[in-house]
Amino acid sequence: MIDPGTFLKAQTRKAGLAPGTLVQVGERKEERIFLSRFDYGPEFFAESTPPTIDECLEQAEDAAVTWINIDGLHDISVIEKLGARFGLDPLSQEDILTPAQRPKLEDCGNYLLVIARMLTFDEESGRIRAEQVSIVLGERFVLSIQESRGDVFGPLRDRLRSGRGRIRKMGADYLAYVLLDCIVDNYFVLLERLGERIQELDEELSLDPRRETLQSVHELRREIIFLRKSTWPLREVANGFERSESTLVSEGLNPYLRDLYDHTIQIIDIVETYQDLLQGMLDLYLSSVSNRMNEVMKVLTVFAAIFIPLTFIVGIYGMNFEHMPELAWSWAYPGLLVLMFGGAVGMFLFFRRKGWM
Amino acid sequence: MIDPGTFLKAQTRKAGLAPGTLVQVGERKEERIFLSRFDYGPEFFAESTPPTIDECLEQAEDAAVTWINIDGLHDISVIEKLGARFGLDPLSQEDILTPAQRPKLEDCGNYLLVIARMLTFDEESGRIRAEQVSIVLGERFVLSIQESRGDVFGPLRDRLRSGRGRIRKMGADYLAYVLLDCIVDNYFVLLERLGERIQELDEELSLDPRRETLQSVHELRREIIFLRKSTWPLREVANGFERSESTLVSEGLNPYLRDLYDHTIQIIDIVETYQDLLQGMLDLYLSSVSNRMNEVMKVLTVFAAIFIPLTFIVGIYGMNFEHMPELAWSWAYPGLLVLMFGGAVGMFLFFRRKGWM
Amino acid sequence: MIDPGTFLKAQTRKAGLAPGTLVQVGERKEERIFLSRFDYGPEFFAESTPPTIDECLEQAEDAAVTWINIDGLHDISVIEKLGARFGLDPLSQEDILTPAQRPKLEDCGNYLLVIARMLTFDEESGRIRAEQVSIVLGERFVLSIQESRGDVFGPLRDRLRSGRGRIRKMGADYLAYVLLDCIVDNYFVLLERLGERIQELDEELSLDPRRETLQSVHELRREIIFLRKSTWPLREVANGFERSESTLVSEGLNPYLRDLYDHTIQIIDIVETYQDLLQGMLDLYLSSVSNRMNEVMKVLTVFAAIFIPLTFIVGIYGMNFEHMPELAWSWAYPGLLVLMFGGAVGMFLFFRRKGWM
Amino acid sequence: MIDPGTFLKAQTRKAGLAPGTLVQVGERKEERIFLSRFDYGPEFFAESTPPTIDECLEQAEDAAVTWINIDGLHDISVIEKLGARFGLDPLSQEDILTPAQRPKLEDCGNYLLVIARMLTFDEESGRIRAEQVSIVLGERFVLSIQESRGDVFGPLRDRLRSGRGRIRKMGADYLAYVLLDCIVDNYFVLLERLGERIQELDEELSLDPRRETLQSVHELRREIIFLRKSTWPLREVANGFERSESTLVSEGLNPYLRDLYDHTIQIIDIVETYQDLLQGMLDLYLSSVSNRMNEVMKVLTVFAAIFIPLTFIVGIYGMNFEHMPELAWSWAYPGLLVLMFGGAVGMFLFFRRKGWM
Amino acid sequence: MIDPGTFLKAQTRKAGLAPGTLVQVGERKEERIFLSRFDYGPEFFAESTPPTIDECLEQAEDAAVTWINIDGLHDISVIEKLGARFGLDPLSQEDILTPAQRPKLEDCGNYLLVIARMLTFDEESGRIRAEQVSIVLGERFVLSIQESRGDVFGPLRDRLRSGRGRIRKMGADYLAYVLLDCIVDNYFVLLERLGERIQELDEELSLDPRRETLQSVHELRREIIFLRKSTWPLREVANGFERSESTLVSEGLNPYLRDLYDHTIQIIDIVETYQDLLQGMLDLYLSSVSNRMNEVMKVLTVFAAIFIPLTFIVGIYGMNFEHMPELAWSWAYPGLLVLMFGGAVGMFLFFRRKGWM
Repeated sequence: MIDPGTFLKAQTRKAGLAPGTLVQVGERKEERIFLSRFDYGPEFFAESTPPTIDECLEQAEDAAVTWINIDGLHDISVIEKLGARFGLDPLSQEDILTPAQRPKLEDCGNYLLVIARMLTFDEESGRIRAEQVSIVLGERFVLSIQESRGDVFGPLRDRLRSGRGRIRKMGADYLAYVLLDCIVDNYFVLLERLGERIQELDEELSLDPRRETLQSVHELRREIIFLRKSTWPLREVANGFERSESTLVSEGLNPYLRDLYDHTIQIIDIVETYQDLLQGMLDLYLSSVSNRMNEVMKVLTVFAAIFIPLTFIVGIYGMNFEHMPELAWSWAYPGLLVLMFGGAVGMFLFFRRKGWM
Repeated sequence: MIDPGTFLKAQTRKAGLAPGTLVQVGERKEERIFLSRFDYGPEFFAESTPPTIDECLEQAEDAAVTWINIDGLHDISVIEKLGARFGLDPLSQEDILTPAQRPKLEDCGNYLLVIARMLTFDEESGRIRAEQVSIVLGERFVLSIQESRGDVFGPLRDRLRSGRGRIRKMGADYLAYVLLDCIVDNYFVLLERLGERIQELDEELSLDPRRETLQSVHELRREIIFLRKSTWPLREVANGFERSESTLVSEGLNPYLRDLYDHTIQIIDIVETYQDLLQGMLDLYLSSVSNRMNEVMKVLTVFAAIFIPLTFIVGIYGMNFEHMPELAWSWAYPGLLVLMFGGAVGMFLFFRRKGWM
Repeated sequence: MIDPGTFLKAQTRKAGLAPGTLVQVGERKEERIFLSRFDYGPEFFAESTPPTIDECLEQAEDAAVTWINIDGLHDISVIEKLGARFGLDPLSQEDILTPAQRPKLEDCGNYLLVIARMLTFDEESGRIRAEQVSIVLGERFVLSIQESRGDVFGPLRDRLRSGRGRIRKMGADYLAYVLLDCIVDNYFVLLERLGERIQELDEELSLDPRRETLQSVHELRREIIFLRKSTWPLREVANGFERSESTLVSEGLNPYLRDLYDHTIQIIDIVETYQDLLQGMLDLYLSSVSNRMNEVMKVLTVFAAIFIPLTFIVGIYGMNFEHMPELAWSWAYPGLLVLMFGGAVGMFLFFRRKGWM
Repeated sequence: MIDPGTFLKAQTRKAGLAPGTLVQVGERKEERIFLSRFDYGPEFFAESTPPTIDECLEQAEDAAVTWINIDGLHDISVIEKLGARFGLDPLSQEDILTPAQRPKLEDCGNYLLVIARMLTFDEESGRIRAEQVSIVLGERFVLSIQESRGDVFGPLRDRLRSGRGRIRKMGADYLAYVLLDCIVDNYFVLLERLGERIQELDEELSLDPRRETLQSVHELRREIIFLRKSTWPLREVANGFERSESTLVSEGLNPYLRDLYDHTIQIIDIVETYQDLLQGMLDLYLSSVSNRMNEVMKVLTVFAAIFIPLTFIVGIYGMNFEHMPELAWSWAYPGLLVLMFGGAVGMFLFFRRKGWM
Repeated sequence: MIDPGTFLKAQTRKAGLAPGTLVQVGERKEERIFLSRFDYGPEFFAESTPPTIDECLEQAEDAAVTWINIDGLHDISVIEKLGARFGLDPLSQEDILTPAQRPKLEDCGNYLLVIARMLTFDEESGRIRAEQVSIVLGERFVLSIQESRGDVFGPLRDRLRSGRGRIRKMGADYLAYVLLDCIVDNYFVLLERLGERIQELDEELSLDPRRETLQSVHELRREIIFLRKSTWPLREVANGFERSESTLVSEGLNPYLRDLYDHTIQIIDIVETYQDLLQGMLDLYLSSVSNRMNEVMKVLTVFAAIFIPLTFIVGIYGMNFEHMPELAWSWAYPGLLVLMFGGAVGMFLFFRRKGWM
């Protein structure tokens, strides 16, 4: 669940402060912040993992593209120094520091700020966990800031190191696109896992529904509501990137951005399909509950309608009146038995004809 | 509940009057009206709390920005004098005086009028209380008019007094933005409280639902319907502010206004999520009621289907016919007991196989 | 209920006729048509109630604005003469004569035609009654045509007579606006009444719901569906008025028209809120019916599950077998009583633990 | 029901053929095709009903407007000859020949093609029957092609013959408009009939609902779903006509086209209202079923809860134990009767207080 | 079911790879790939089925249009060679190779790429099977790539061979249109089959609903949800084609493209209608289940309410009290019988009046 509570707590703590005031609002405290820096160009490549932000920013800078990745948000001064070095607006710094924000793309003149969400499915709790990833695209640099250490950019690092593909030949805008593409690709992994979960629940619900199954379906549905709320702004981000008039994004990137946009649309399509699937599962389940209740009622009614009258009849001949001439007739007992049997059979046939059995 | 009744009563009282006629329609009567005035500039600051509106307006005016705040609406003459002094249109004055209006932004040429709502959660009644706040942004002045005394602008006053941050260096438009930002920030506080309430009700509903719980969920849902009706126009206000072509709003304010707009979008997102959550809770609750009914019915049916036929059988041998040869057989009684026991076990197994037990 | 039947009957009667053919389709027949004429300007005022349309049209015309009001639609010739005198298109005349039309604004070149609906709540039938009001705004004249005599323009007439306010100083466009404003104000009166009715029904439904209450809620809901269908085109009328490029509407009227537009938006908001309220009431009611059924079933099941087995047991010892040794044991009867009591208590505790009691 | 099957069968039969290939796909086979031709101008009028299409097309042509009406679609050669004579595109000819198409307006350069639907309510089956009407508006001619012989244009023919009204003075575009207006007017007749049917069903459903009533409501609802699907494109046709930039449509026609457009909007409004009405009827019905079930259950529970325990008690004293001292007490029987009566009354009062009786 | 799983698996396998990397992600492995090549012009025609892609691409090329059709996607090198020969972008090649993509039209400068879906109804599983078809329209060539061998383009091949119709006289854009038209026509075949299936299920559901029927309806509904998700982007493709500003699409194609667009709209209309139909079927079914339950409950209640009190009464006279004077009265037994009969008849009449029988 992309808990709105996280965001709300952050906002509540900041209420009354001047806009652009930096406050540590995130809750997750990594022991330390991980920094990594890549400098590269068509014929150049350098990688470093400086222990402090100052060292990270000090290094020389003759590369075509500089990528600084920061894992961990709990030290405001890191963001402040970063902001000072790359000329980030205080409002942008606030955006980077506030977790659980709505994904967005902002053109801040000399840089573009992308706020995105990295989603993973937590198997244990059955919930979607969200982490904010901020990407800053500047003239010759890209900054990426994550809430905690993740490995989603690992394959990208390998590609950079090996120099395979076109990535080293392209500019900073292509790197920013690739980072976003990694995040979007990750959605597909999440969606596949959710799809399997839906399938599991579907089978459980139709074969052997327990109270917990229903609860799980409702919880999954709730997760998917939140997921949907995340994917719509993602689409806007991809669209905004493609339509951006910023000079930071080169014309040549357009086919890639269109591809990214197509992927976000497809994600939305699948999420909506999942919603429909879950709704359909619940509808079918409720229909069958209703149906089964009907069957139970029919059984009860048939039993009651056959045996209650018979019990009344035998009750009659259990009465102790002195003057009950039938009691003395020798064929009365077998006759009554036959009569009652006939009556029961008749009722049975009647209910069968009504389709109740 | 943002009671439409308040607004309707006001409108009804005014039906037939000429547009722009000022009528005291608000119901809440503060004993007196609180006035406060701030005059400030980059290097200048003066604060006063004049007892009457005349004194408030009389004061000299060599400040870059003048902010007059009025708490209390029950004296029409105050608004009239304000209107005369700052050139407010009669229709604008009417808007300021009419409570429970739809939030809106109006460009009235030499000033901008913002009608907004301040929302608080009344713990006792479990309802959202709404108060109208009107903000007038003019050339070098800002007016803010509230229905009753509130403390939401308190931190802002402190910031003004201390001269911290950029507020004293900015113009009247920035002050108007900050006032609106205070109001929007307050929504987050409300949303956090509502989120907690939803969580409480969710637990109550799944653990120990009483009749009152259902009622509470429905009431909360109703409150959130009203809340949603309030947030959409708020978004329009923020959007209108950003897109305003008025010369009163400087270019430099745009990043702040975009930030404000993002916040209103996020509020709408959270409100819609809350709606979905409540709907999901009710759906789940209804499913479980239906489920439980099913279980109850099964128990009833199993009991009835096992014991009603048995009661019939023992009824047979309670009959007083003279010619019932079985009665004299010595093994008849134990045999019948065994038979009945066997029948009951058979029924039991049958129902168990059907999954009814 | 704004009965579509009225409109449909009118249309059906006209099917096959040439467009623009005038037919008396309204059903309500006032005994006579009431005419009134106001001629006024900043320094001039004349009022008359001519008995016939010819006299009404004959009068001299040196006024800045001429307002002719007609109550009653059953005489086609009146509209024809009016049309001839003021150059109304046959299609416009047809619109004026056809009741229950969709509200609209039409720019017919030398005049603007507004078709609106006057709504009142009929306490007896619990239905909304609708009457069509047509307003024609021309160069220096305004025509208003109502289906039957109403008093909604009464306060306006008083304002004209007294010369208070700005009305006499303004042109024909302002008069047309004021007429429309009267009609819109009337909606608020209706909405307040409906709000009270909803409150009444809400209480009835939660305290002592009878079959009639449910029926009433559904009827009110139906009325509000119709009301909503009326308010959307009203908004279009107000919007169209404001955006009109006709020279008949002066620039100075814009703030008033914006105000009118705001009112229609607020009406729509309230109507939608009412719909949600009614839907919520019905949902809550259905949940409680379902809940109550559950309770009833539990009581039945508990009774049946406790007493049906006991009845079976006593039935056993009511059998007349000769060889039932227990019958002779002296402690058998009290022992059985104790046993049965214990069993009943056990069942009772079991059901209590299951939360069924 | 505007059966999509008809259209689908036509399309299926054509799958794989080249676009624009003419195939006889309509199913209805009139014995012969009825042709009629009207030539008229302000001072000229000629009418003929030629037996063959060749004769129909051969006639001289000095009229301002030529109107050819064709009833029956089963002879492809007729459409081909028509197409050749008036320069119709093969795709247009295909459109004319394919039944159950979506209504549309197409500007084909030298002519406009309107595909519309004529709807009638079939009383017997309770279904809406649809027939396709194609109207071709050319420079000085109008073609109208119907699936089978209808009389909806009868009054129009009379108007042409009599020369009443403005029709003979106007051009071909006005004739096309009048044909479309006839079709739209016919919708109102249908809607009135449907309105009556809804009223009937509403009464049946609230007074004496039988299984068939529910079925009928659902069928009517289905019909109205189809009807709605027909009316939206009709609106687009009317709108497209008004906004058409074709020189075939003169400026002077605009007020008429706006009127036509208003009518289609009103039709949509009424159809949507009908949908809401039917939905409301079903909701109310389901609520009452639920309510009634509740009542039934209460009666059952009260009976069971009162008499089952009593039956158990009398069962006790029907046991044949030898040592049951109470049996010998002389006041035991009347005392027990009084006790049981008291218990029953107590239960009765208890249930009454619970509101179950 | 257009299983999102297929697409997701493909995407998951590609996560972390550079965009434009070609990976074999499709699962279906045909034994070999089928290639066919048509070269034609107004006066020229050549057909070949080369065994390898190299031979297919080698052939001379003096034709107006070259159409290469490829059935089978499992050999990446085929697509790579094709891409090299016709200058396809790596992203386009990736699109062609990734199955289950959202249909789309992309203008890639020197060619247009259409991704479409071919749908067939699998009778056995009752599911819709989807295969991706990619169409590339270049200057003088058209490429069509299918996942597996299909015969939907068979009639088109015959038309090409025979030289009938206009196809040989038109350019490559017309061929691309005809291919798309074949695919769209195929949707109608599918829709007709689905329509029949709905009809079958409707009858089953109203006559003799079994548990499987409900399941089938829900499955069909799910299929139609997926179908709808497929048809909306198809409409966008048709629309994009028509509005394309690419020089590859000639003006003369517009009427055909409009026709194609109309067909996609009609498909959407029918799919939505099917959704409404299925929803209506389920609603009606649930209403009848509810209704039937009501009937069952009434029967149960009537039986219980009549016989339970009677059983109690006969139980009274089965008691063994010594002092029960009634037992000795000679008319007591027949009197009681008459009384009980009267009571039963009374109850019966009471319930009949209540409409429960």
